[in-house]
Amino acid sequence: MGTIVTWTTDFGDGSAYVAQMKGVLLSLAPHATLVDVTHGIPPQDVRAGQRVLAEVTPLFPAGSLHVAVVDPGVGTARRLVYAAIEGRHYLAPDNGLLARLPRPDRIVVLENAAYWRSPVSATFHGRDILAPVAGHLCRGVDPGALGQEGDSLVTLPWPEPVVTANGLRGEIVACDSFGNLIANVTRADFARAGLDTDATVVLPGVGTGGGRVSGLVRTYGERPRGTLVALFGSHDALEIAVCEGNAENVLNVSVGAEVQVISGSGAR
Amino acid sequence: MGTIVTWTTDFGDGSAYVAQMKGVLLSLAPHATLVDVTHGIPPQDVRAGQRVLAEVTPLFPAGSLHVAVVDPGVGTARRLVYAAIEGRHYLAPDNGLLARLPRPDRIVVLENAAYWRSPVSATFHGRDILAPVAGHLCRGVDPGALGQEGDSLVTLPWPEPVVTANGLRGEIVACDSFGNLIANVTRADFARAGLDTDATVVLPGVGTGGGRVSGLVRTYGERPRGTLVALFGSHDALEIAVCEGNAENVLNVSVGAEVQVISGSGAR
Amino acid sequence: MGTIVTWTTDFGDGSAYVAQMKGVLLSLAPHATLVDVTHGIPPQDVRAGQRVLAEVTPLFPAGSLHVAVVDPGVGTARRLVYAAIEGRHYLAPDNGLLARLPRPDRIVVLENAAYWRSPVSATFHGRDILAPVAGHLCRGVDPGALGQEGDSLVTLPWPEPVVTANGLRGEIVACDSFGNLIANVTRADFARAGLDTDATVVLPGVGTGGGRVSGLVRTYGERPRGTLVALFGSHDALEIAVCEGNAENVLNVSVGAEVQVISGSGAR
Repeated sequence: MGTIVTWTTDFGDGSAYVAQMKGVLLSLAPHATLVDVTHGIPPQDVRAGQRVLAEVTPLFPAGSLHVAVVDPGVGTARRLVYAAIEGRHYLAPDNGLLARLPRPDRIVVLENAAYWRSPVSATFHGRDILAPVAGHLCRGVDPGALGQEGDSLVTLPWPEPVVTANGLRGEIVACDSFGNLIANVTRADFARAGLDTDATVVLPGVGTGGGRVSGLVRTYGERPRGTLVALFGSHDALEIAVCEGNAENVLNVSVGAEVQVISGSGAR
Repeated sequence: MGTIVTWTTDFGDGSAYVAQMKGVLLSLAPHATLVDVTHGIPPQDVRAGQRVLAEVTPLFPAGSLHVAVVDPGVGTARRLVYAAIEGRHYLAPDNGLLARLPRPDRIVVLENAAYWRSPVSATFHGRDILAPVAGHLCRGVDPGALGQEGDSLVTLPWPEPVVTANGLRGEIVACDSFGNLIANVTRADFARAGLDTDATVVLPGVGTGGGRVSGLVRTYGERPRGTLVALFGSHDALEIAVCEGNAENVLNVSVGAEVQVISGSGAR
Repeated sequence: MGTIVTWTTDFGDGSAYVAQMKGVLLSLAPHATLVDVTHGIPPQDVRAGQRVLAEVTPLFPAGSLHVAVVDPGVGTARRLVYAAIEGRHYLAPDNGLLARLPRPDRIVVLENAAYWRSPVSATFHGRDILAPVAGHLCRGVDPGALGQEGDSLVTLPWPEPVVTANGLRGEIVACDSFGNLIANVTRADFARAGLDTDATVVLPGVGTGGGRVSGLVRTYGERPRGTLVALFGSHDALEIAVCEGNAENVLNVSVGAEVQVISGSGAR
């Protein structure tokens, strides 16, 4: 069996840039099993990449190798790194992309050009450095051969929700293809703020009355088509959704919008 | 060789939700060969999923396992099922998604939580139930261990075309990425209604004269660029197309539009 | 290990037509390793397909098999061919799609229907001819069994840049998902025309002053966000880009637009 290698980029779905990286990797490690995590990270959005890597890669088996390329600083002084995290392997620019994962057990800065393509372009290190390094790792090269050990990774603070007098204030951090709006507020944040599923969820940026939901449901199918609901989604994060509809379109809300959670249903 | 496992969802191309299911499966069955059928089923459109599964999955080899998730009722009372159909294996919500395939030789209702992730979210049974069950099937678990045998699946009637005084009346059931409009009318329906390739195809919803084609061609390249044509496409279904163009955009027609087929070219 | 088989089409990302080809191939060659190059070639755009095949497929290992379907002439008299090029194998319509790759070492015209599906549709030779032929090649069938040897492929001339009195005149040939505009002008063309990285790049179709860049940078991250830059991209082709932005949207330029490169920065 070959190593499982996953790919997370902002190259766009169907980008031939992804295929270039895969060709380079398969030339070194033809037995690898390739899996796309997503190539739909918004361009240069390191925070979105950070979130996807933290939610998806821990579901893969130990020993898997995760290559991530959201790299607005390609060709500049930012480092490229190898990181070992909970038995999985990561290759990425050191720009915060790995910062929402657990602290690495080991970090190696990619410096040894013997494991790179030659020449290295200034604009596509994913193809010319990360993909061949991934191939060599699949072939059994020790990460220690790739460069100097590193102490820590660049951080990129996650926007944590704020506890308020009567609840929480957070923001929308993602929107999925169903138009479900995903907030930076979790089931644990609710508990911490003394909130329960009777709480009212408000999107203050939405016109009069349009962005207010009293009480959380358990799942989308519990209300008639077209009903605006709030619920904890598949990562225990608060979601605002329209049953069999698209909340992003209906509410005209996007990533970055403020979300308030207010204790009880009568709150104003 | 690992089992071939295919994925058909309405999660959207490039959705990281798909990668979550794959990670769960590969954690149990790292040798599996994964193939995406499509993630572009319109959200909650069970009928579109039904059509794709019926057209695509029979082309895969015996023994392959097909996971399908178009599941507006996730977390409600609808069942999840295993079905064996003509030597292939299916896992899906029992909401009509499998209803256009041949009648199953065996149905098992997924009830045995020992083969699920724990805890199971209320909003993502694809990741928490179907993917791990798929993984266990790849490892050789007998479908009988998954739950009680079932008698039949939920049906979702397919819109059959109607024979009229001078031909057929049907509807557009799909549109592909070329903008080709695909009707629920087949070569066999033509024969049944006494029609031949001299027939006239009319889209009554399109403005004066714009949606009328006299006679069928054999393939797109038989007429000059920009010509509106009708033909039997790759599943013997009637298509309306624009040669090297996009019929959906040119005619402004979408799924659900009425299609009439009238005997002979002089018909009115 | 199975053969590596790649897919390049204009079927659209997430198209179930692609999955049909994969099902047919895997029914014959279940061990094959499948890799999507892209399905995002603009419909019927043979030249775009030509460019992607030439840039991506040489990165794959020797012995890999590349199936390409951009085929506006499907079902008409155009030939389907097998070509051996630098140790790799190709299957494609003979319409210029392979014409930007090196000259084939061997060409075989696909004529032997024993290796095809039956019946063959008039509209989907990718599924009914190329995919099963690919499967048989994976199983070890000699290309010579597929039909008569051919002498040469249909050509489709590439738009080469023109040397002018003070530089070069070329055109935009592609735009990637970042909105980077890619010209048919390479680092070698610069050398040939006596240009260096002090040159000025002009898009004459863009309004007053909007499409002029003096001097080339090395990579995107060298200038502040929003700056219009010119540089040699990952295939040594001239690109016009907006740092952390989208040049295609900002300049409202698309494929086919004229590009001028003028010696020195003071040039007018």
